[in-house]
Order: sequence, then C-alpha cells, then structure tokens
Amino acid sequence: MVIEGIWVVEKHTDHILYLYRIKEHIYHGKTAYQKVDMVVLESFGKTLFLDGKIQSAEIDEAVYHEVLVHPAMITHGSPEKVLIIGGGEGATLREVLRYPVKKAVMVDIDEQLVKLCEAYMPEWHRGAFYDERSEVIFTDARQYIENTDEKFDVIISDLTEPIEGGPSVMLFTKEFYQSVYDRLSDEGVLVVQSASADVYYGNLYPHIYRTLKEIFPVVKVYHTFILSFQMDWAFTIASKGKDPEDVNAGRIRDIISDFEGELKFYTPDMHYAIFKLPRYMIENLKNGRVLRDDNPAIWES
Amino acid sequence: MVIEGIWVVEKHTDHILYLYRIKEHIYHGKTAYQKVDMVVLESFGKTLFLDGKIQSAEIDEAVYHEVLVHPAMITHGSPEKVLIIGGGEGATLREVLRYPVKKAVMVDIDEQLVKLCEAYMPEWHRGAFYDERSEVIFTDARQYIENTDEKFDVIISDLTEPIEGGPSVMLFTKEFYQSVYDRLSDEGVLVVQSASADVYYGNLYPHIYRTLKEIFPVVKVYHTFILSFQMDWAFTIASKGKDPEDVNAGRIRDIISDFEGELKFYTPDMHYAIFKLPRYMIENLKNGRVLRDDNPAIWES
Amino acid sequence: MVIEGIWVVEKHTDHILYLYRIKEHIYHGKTAYQKVDMVVLESFGKTLFLDGKIQSAEIDEAVYHEVLVHPAMITHGSPEKVLIIGGGEGATLREVLRYPVKKAVMVDIDEQLVKLCEAYMPEWHRGAFYDERSEVIFTDARQYIENTDEKFDVIISDLTEPIEGGPSVMLFTKEFYQSVYDRLSDEGVLVVQSASADVYYGNLYPHIYRTLKEIFPVVKVYHTFILSFQMDWAFTIASKGKDPEDVNAGRIRDIISDFEGELKFYTPDMHYAIFKLPRYMIENLKNGRVLRDDNPAIWES
Amino acid sequence: MVIEGIWVVEKHTDHILYLYRIKEHIYHGKTAYQKVDMVVLESFGKTLFLDGKIQSAEIDEAVYHEVLVHPAMITHGSPEKVLIIGGGEGATLREVLRYPVKKAVMVDIDEQLVKLCEAYMPEWHRGAFYDERSEVIFTDARQYIENTDEKFDVIISDLTEPIEGGPSVMLFTKEFYQSVYDRLSDEGVLVVQSASADVYYGNLYPHIYRTLKEIFPVVKVYHTFILSFQMDWAFTIASKGKDPEDVNAGRIRDIISDFEGELKFYTPDMHYAIFKLPRYMIENLKNGRVLRDDNPAIWES
Repeated sequence: MVIEGIWVVEKHTDHILYLYRIKEHIYHGKTAYQKVDMVVLESFGKTLFLDGKIQSAEIDEAVYHEVLVHPAMITHGSPEKVLIIGGGEGATLREVLRYPVKKAVMVDIDEQLVKLCEAYMPEWHRGAFYDERSEVIFTDARQYIENTDEKFDVIISDLTEPIEGGPSVMLFTKEFYQSVYDRLSDEGVLVVQSASADVYYGNLYPHIYRTLKEIFPVVKVYHTFILSFQMDWAFTIASKGKDPEDVNAGRIRDIISDFEGELKFYTPDMHYAIFKLPRYMIENLKNGRVLRDDNPAIWES
Repeated sequence: MVIEGIWVVEKHTDHILYLYRIKEHIYHGKTAYQKVDMVVLESFGKTLFLDGKIQSAEIDEAVYHEVLVHPAMITHGSPEKVLIIGGGEGATLREVLRYPVKKAVMVDIDEQLVKLCEAYMPEWHRGAFYDERSEVIFTDARQYIENTDEKFDVIISDLTEPIEGGPSVMLFTKEFYQSVYDRLSDEGVLVVQSASADVYYGNLYPHIYRTLKEIFPVVKVYHTFILSFQMDWAFTIASKGKDPEDVNAGRIRDIISDFEGELKFYTPDMHYAIFKLPRYMIENLKNGRVLRDDNPAIWES
Repeated sequence: MVIEGIWVVEKHTDHILYLYRIKEHIYHGKTAYQKVDMVVLESFGKTLFLDGKIQSAEIDEAVYHEVLVHPAMITHGSPEKVLIIGGGEGATLREVLRYPVKKAVMVDIDEQLVKLCEAYMPEWHRGAFYDERSEVIFTDARQYIENTDEKFDVIISDLTEPIEGGPSVMLFTKEFYQSVYDRLSDEGVLVVQSASADVYYGNLYPHIYRTLKEIFPVVKVYHTFILSFQMDWAFTIASKGKDPEDVNAGRIRDIISDFEGELKFYTPDMHYAIFKLPRYMIENLKNGRVLRDDNPAIWES
Repeated sequence: MVIEGIWVVEKHTDHILYLYRIKEHIYHGKTAYQKVDMVVLESFGKTLFLDGKIQSAEIDEAVYHEVLVHPAMITHGSPEKVLIIGGGEGATLREVLRYPVKKAVMVDIDEQLVKLCEAYMPEWHRGAFYDERSEVIFTDARQYIENTDEKFDVIISDLTEPIEGGPSVMLFTKEFYQSVYDRLSDEGVLVVQSASADVYYGNLYPHIYRTLKEIFPVVKVYHTFILSFQMDWAFTIASKGKDPEDVNAGRIRDIISDFEGELKFYTPDMHYAIFKLPRYMIENLKNGRVLRDDNPAIWES
C-alpha cells in the first residue's frame, strides 16, 4: 500500500488508534464549544470530526439517523410536535420531517457548528433547515426545556458524550430527564442516543437506562452496528406508556411507505430485531447507576 | 495518552489502519500457510493475528464462536455427527462439544497453527482437543470432503477469507458446496462464516449466498457485530429443509439450559434477531454471483 | 500527549515511518510532475512535501540553502554568472543573489510548482524571483544545458532524487555532467546536492562522486546534518581547478560580511569542517560507480 | 509497502512520532529505574529502548561511543585511570579499554539493566566487563564521586537525559561538576554527553556548557550526527587546562594506529571538525544558565 499521505488519527482508547486517510480538506477550526474537522475520507466520504472523534460520515449517516429517529416516531405513531436536543448536522431533523409533523424544534448550543454543517454538509440536512415546520434555537437545551411551556410528542436526544467540562454533562441526569418527562405529551416518547454498546469501550447505556427507569414506566435499550463508529451502538427509548415492541408491523409498513426517498437501514423487521440484546448487554444493564446533577456521568473512553 | 510503546499495525483497508498496543508477546513465527502473531493486547487480551489480521481475541472470541455454532446446531435440533472445516483455535470445536454429539471431526490444513493454538491459547479450546468425541485431521478440507464416506448432521465452515494463493480459495465454490451437500445427512445443516457485513469493507456474503442457493433449498444470511473485527459480520446457513427461523423458542431454551458453562452472546431472542437484516444487506444480497472453481472469489480488503 | 489530529505520514524507508502533526493546510494538489502538499507543521513550520517526502521546511531551509550555495560560490570567489538547476522554491536563487553576481539563471521543469512556491512560500524566495538579475526558465535542464551557449562561473544542481520515471534521472549521469563541464567558465565550480549521507538510508553520493571524478580534476564531498530531513546530508563540489579547502579564511569572512541579512549556519570555520568526513563516508566513497545515460542511478529509499 | 506488522512507536516530541518495524523481540521488562525494550529493528538491527526512547542501536553505536570517548581520551594524551558515569551497555568501557589504561571504573545505578545488556547485547561490551582493568560499581554516581578518594585522568559522563524524577537529574548540576573537578587529576579531562544539538528538539548543551564554565578553565562543545537518534548530537569537554583543539594530529594518528579493531567514525580530521559549530549552535550557547542542585535541568522533549 501507499502509506505516504495525510491521515486523521483518532484515539479510540488509550490502547487503540485509528488512522483514516484524507482525500480532501473542507474545514478545520474551532467553535466556542468544540474543535471541528470536516474532511473527505477515502474510506467514508465526507466526514465530521468533533474534538478528534468521528461524529458522522457520509457512508452511513443514514443508518445512524434512521435508527435514532424511526423507532421512537413509530412507537408514538402520529407525532405532531417533535423536539430534537442537539442534532447539529440537521440529519435528525431531516428524518423527523419525513413524517407529517406540524412542528420540529431543534435546540443546539453550538450555532457556529450548525452553520458550518449547513454550509459544508448539505448532504446531511438536505434542506431540512429551510422547511417551514422547522425551528432551530441556539441555546442550552436544559435551559430551553426548563423554561418552555410547549409539549412534545417525541423528544430526541442527539448529543455528544458527556465529556468532562463539555456542554452535555447536565443533559444526561435524572433531574434533566424529569424536565423532559414534564414536556412530553401523554403519549410521549423519548429516545436518547446512548453511546457505545461495545464490551471493550466504556459504556454509558446502563446508566442512562437505570436513570430513565426512575422516571418512565417504559424504558428499553436497543442497539445496532454503526460502521463509521466501528462499534455497536446503544439507544434508549423511554415513554409514558407506549412500548416500541408492541407496534404493529403493518402499521410500520404503512408509515414508511409514505416516506419520500429511500431508507438505507430501517425495515419493519429491524424495528423488532434491534431490541433483542446480546446476553452481555442484558448483563451489563444491571451495572447502571442513577445519574444525578450532583454526580453526573463523565465520559472517558 | 502515552503513545510510546509497541503496537501492532493492522491494515483494515488501503485507507484505514488500526494500531493496537501490545502488552505481552507470546509467539511470532510462520507456519507453512501463514504468518502467526500471538500477543496480549492491552485492549482485547490474548489475540491471534494471522497474516497481519486479527483472527480471534480473548475479549470476544465467545461471541464469534457462539454465533457461528449455535444457530446451525439448534436448527438441526439433535446433531450427532459434526464436521468443522478450519477452526484452528479449537473454540468452534469447544462450542460443538457442549451438545451431546457422538463425534466431532475438525479438518484443518495447518497443523503447526493448531499445535500453537493448543499450546499457547488454551483459553480457546479448553480441552476440546482431548475430548474423546473429537477427531482432528490435518489435511485440505476439500480433499477430505471429496474422499470421505461419512455423513454429518452439521457442517461448520470456519475458514479464513479466500486470499489469492491462500488455502481456502477452493473452499467457497459451488463445486465444493455440492460435495458438502452430499456429505450432509437428510436433516443436515451447513453454516459458513461469511466475512464482513460492512457497507464499506469488501463483502463476500452475497456471493456465498448466491452460490449456496444453487444447491440448497433453504439459505439464510445472518449477522452480528464482532468487536475485535470492528465490523458487523455475516454468516450463512444452508440446509436440506430445516429453517433456522422456524425453530421453537422453548426448544432453544431447553437445549442451552443443558450447557455447561455460560453463554456470552447467544439467547433465544438473539437467535431470531440475527436473521433480520438491515435494508442495505438485503439490497446487497442481489449483487452475488455464483462462485465456481474456474472463477472463485478472491478476497481483497 | 494528545494524539488525535491530522498528521502527515512520511515513509522514510519500508521500515521507518515519520508522523508530523499538521497545524494548518495551505495547498494540496498535483503538478504535471509531482504531488504537492504545503502545510504548516507544528514542529517545523511551513513545510513542502513533494511526492510524500519533506522537501523543505521553514525551520531549517536556511541551513540547507546556505550549505548548498556558499561553499561553491566562495570557492569560485567572484562569480558573475550562476546557473541553478532545479531549485523550485527560489531559496537557492535567494542565496545566490546575496553575491554581486550579474546574472542568475534558474532552470526548473515544473512551472506549476515554482508558481505555487512563489505564491504560498514567499519566505523562501523573499523576492528573488523579482530581482532583475534573475532569469527563470521552465524547461528540462538537460535540454537547456545542451543547447545554450552561455558559460557560467558556478552551476548549482538542486534536484530531487532520481526516482524511477521522474524528471531528474538523466541529470545525474556522466554525459550530463560533461555538458555541465562544457558550460562552466575556466574557473568554474559545480555543486550537486547529493542526497543522504546516512549509513542506513540509501546513498547516492558515492556514485555522484565517482562520476564527477571522470570529468573534473577537483571533486570533493562534504556533508552536514539537515534537521528536517532527519539525516546527515551529502553535497559534492567539482571544479576545473579550484579547491574549496584552499580558500582563505579571511576572504570568506570578507565576502560574508557584505551579505545583507543573517546567516543561520555558515561560518568560515564550518566551511572547512564540512569537508571532513566520518570514516564510514570515506569508506563508502569507494563503492561508487560511474552513472551513465544507459545505466543511470535509480533512487530507492 | 507492507504496513502490517509490529512497530515500536517513539515519541520524538508532541508533534513528531517515529515508527520502527520490529524484526525480533529480545526482551521487554522493567528495572527498578526504567522500562527496557530490547528488539531487533529491521532498520537499525539490535536496538535498546529505555523508557520508550532509542538508547543505542547496532547500526551506529560505534559512532556514538567513538565520538564520546576518543576526543577526551586523546585530549588527555595518556590516561591511566578513567571513570565512566553511567554507560550501561558497556560500549563506552569497551572504547576506553582500547587505550593502555591501568584502571577503568564504571559506575551505573541500574544493575539490572547492565546485566541485561551483558547477557543480550554482547556486541556492545565485547567482553569489556571481563577485562581485568575494569571495575563495575552499581551505585548512584553522585554518591560514588562524593565519597571516593580516587583521582581520574578522564571522566566520561554517559547518562540518560535528566528526566523529572529520574536518576540523573542531580548529575548535571554545578555542585556535582565541582565534585567531578575535585576527582580529576591535574591534567584531567571531563566529557559529558550533552543531548540533542537540534534546532527543533529541546537543548541541554547550552546549560551544561554554561555550568561547566563556572568551574573549568577550558570548556568546548562539539557535535556530530547520530543516525539512530535522527539528530545532531552535542558533547561537552571540560578540562583543567588541556585544549582538545590543540592536540597534535600526528599524535592522534599514532594513538589510534595502536587500536585493535576498526574505527567507524573517528579520524584525526574529524577530531577537529566536530568542534566547529554551526552558527545557530554558537548563538544558542548564549542561552545557557547555571544548573544548580536547587534548580537543576529538567528534560522535556
């Protein structure tokens, strides 16, 4: 092989490094919140790195965003108002807008990042930012949630990991989730991207699961492999009553058949399959603790 | 982080490299067929590299071997005679011996490798080589299959990828699978480890699927994430009639409750979930071609 | 350390790699002759890579260019007409123009590269391209040399290594050096950058030395450490009679005291010291062969 | 190139990494003082890494040890008693024993390391440890120097860099050098390996120079390129009166002609050349400060 060239080095953990060859440089800089590298990788196409970690890649962003959005939306069945916490690239919003919602609010603290994504990564938002149903608010999501009177049918937490000193530490606590609960309609569904489901890499999902169980009657973890993270990835659904595994398969088929454009990952079959956990994940769920404002999760890889 | 130290560099593809930090050296050498590196990685524990690629790692070898062995064994229901093609480390044999089989034959071409694994990686075989039901034969599997009169209830293909010039190229062709078919009992089930299920990495499974469809009435692809390969991984089951998705869940529960020792991955629920494919895998199945002796698969990553 | 980030990987040899952290991207592209990467390295400042190899770095380009230009110019003593073969960045020209020369001709085959250097690396040429004594010609140096009638007092060969298929293979042969000899005035001096003087890395200087000895009465190898090449580097002076070690120290002092700007490396003492070779270089000189058009040097690192 | 394989990663600085391909493993472990990796590199042959940094390599250990030992020994002219501080591998001792000395004392704190070198790196000591003129003492050199009554003609400081918390921090201070002065005979000469002479890498030599100037009437820095360090390297000679540049060239020739075995680097010409410094080193000498017990040098690369 030709080794010469320009590579991104990603620290997976202290003991594993990844090198990705860069094909093109798009943008390198810093926002008020994070270091941003937008590049075209030979392997994954256009790719966003935040603070040195792959955040989203052209080759499989659809997989991540479909698996984040559709199980919760379909569990609700007919969401009209949706809130996205985080979701900078606009692809979560894009997937939400496939449904006949009335309003989709996206709250992201990092305006500069959202603007960079809007300009340089249009393949992600595909115009979602300009849909008249969209409202994008640049503020701290906790502040927003605690101060709004709105109710939402689905709330989607699409945040980066709670790195020490980072902006999302206080968005994974019981206190925060209580406020989220209060902002959900009676049939409301919350979904939380819950980081790695890997047996080696550090795990956050048992704590998210345990914390949500304190508040919500229905809490279920699901997972799927995300290529560009090179890991199995966990998500957690919590609801005031609706159970994602009780959804009717024909109903799923009907809903997605109305979608414009294609799906890359999601099928009715996959809807159920992702909720089946390997034994090691089932065991690991027992290790969760309740995350609280005075003792939040701090992510270390 | 401390970057200084000794690392294995694995070429994932021409555009992605992995570096794993080495904790301990166990063995470095060459057999007649492949380059062997046995090391203890800080991340994955004891790990076997063949020709520079991770083959099996302590941290999750159980996941790979459970998902390779149990769906086929349980689809058959009560296998008495089992054949393993490849399977050098002895862990496939180990999983097979959890069932009340009468005979388990393992045919591996690389005697030196098997002996190295026996000596240095006892955590894999856990004595399986010394079980009186085991028979280990060092020869080319094709020659064995074409010359034996034995019939098997389950045949497990646990081979390395068909690298050009390597020993397994002729073990993925229609002609070979016809011989395998002939050596299966009437209720017989074949399972083939089918390499990456990744959308980026090269794929072999559509060709294996397409080729087996030429011969077997039932052919199904399944998949699961294998941490130490950092990829979603495909497997293909083919049978003379039995359908892995028709197995009764209670029956699975009964069988595995008789196992000695623990399972790390496999559950009745997972048995069904792994057969549900993401849409991109379903699409990709259409791209398979029939592999033949005069035009076999050549693996390039 | 923070390992995350964007790095240039340089293949030193098949068995040694260098990684340099990139601070800023300036230009990435290809000319008709070579791949060009201009970056700012955290370690070496602004740096030019050609075909994946460091060519020149802000931190020590002065060392390289001083040691290439001054020994030959000072050996001549009062050069009026100077020819530079190669020298894309314009820094060789810059050093030449410190002398009261009448004319300095630079012949480089790669116009695109020279234009890129002119635009993006002004710290190298510092206006030398706009000096009225300068003439820059974009053509093959061999063609130029064989067709010009001009005579030069000093000729400076500042070429990349003769990589197979590259443009400089035929600029290191006896036939070429004979044409160079013919274009030198009676007191003329030639200097050839002669690649690594390292005991590990491949060596070209014994062959250049041996080849020049066929033509010139005085041939001497000198060397100095070049930080950004991470190697000791060889140069060869050949003349029609003048001996670089016979130059008067007071004369050196006088000449350089007239220079505008500072010197980073060169001193009268260093003028003599660089001609003293370690025993292994002296031994290695015996291994040279005469490079000819029909059997030129092909550089492999 | 084949990138797969096992590599040592060396942190040159925070912004430059070196990767060396390993051919064979010899020993990996820890002594009471340092992490030890002995490997055979494809590039440099047998190589010793201490705390992750190349310490000595087969390909050019002779260069380092010749340039450390001979200038000082020859400046003295007829040393009878020699003290080596550090020098674990035994190659410094080996070079000293080429002279008709009466006694050569080596004081190294790390007995385990010396024993490992003795066993695994016999190419370095070549029996020097068994010469009846040799005495090897395992203790802290400062303690030894401050408590001995012996006088030495030449003292050679062959220490690792003064890393924070490491054993050599207090062996580079004015107080220590005063004790060394007191243990030198009237014609005595001290030489100190003085780390990198590189313009990029951190420099210690200006401080060593400045500190020795406080005590010794003659202090001179010299330098040469050391391949396996990939850097120009500094050394400092200090004496009670003898000047290394005043040595008679014929005298040098006579002395080295009596040596058994070959020299790889040192010649009479090189003896003088190494004392000529590039302008940037001359300038840098002005930046030294006096190192004291209460404010020693702490090495950071």
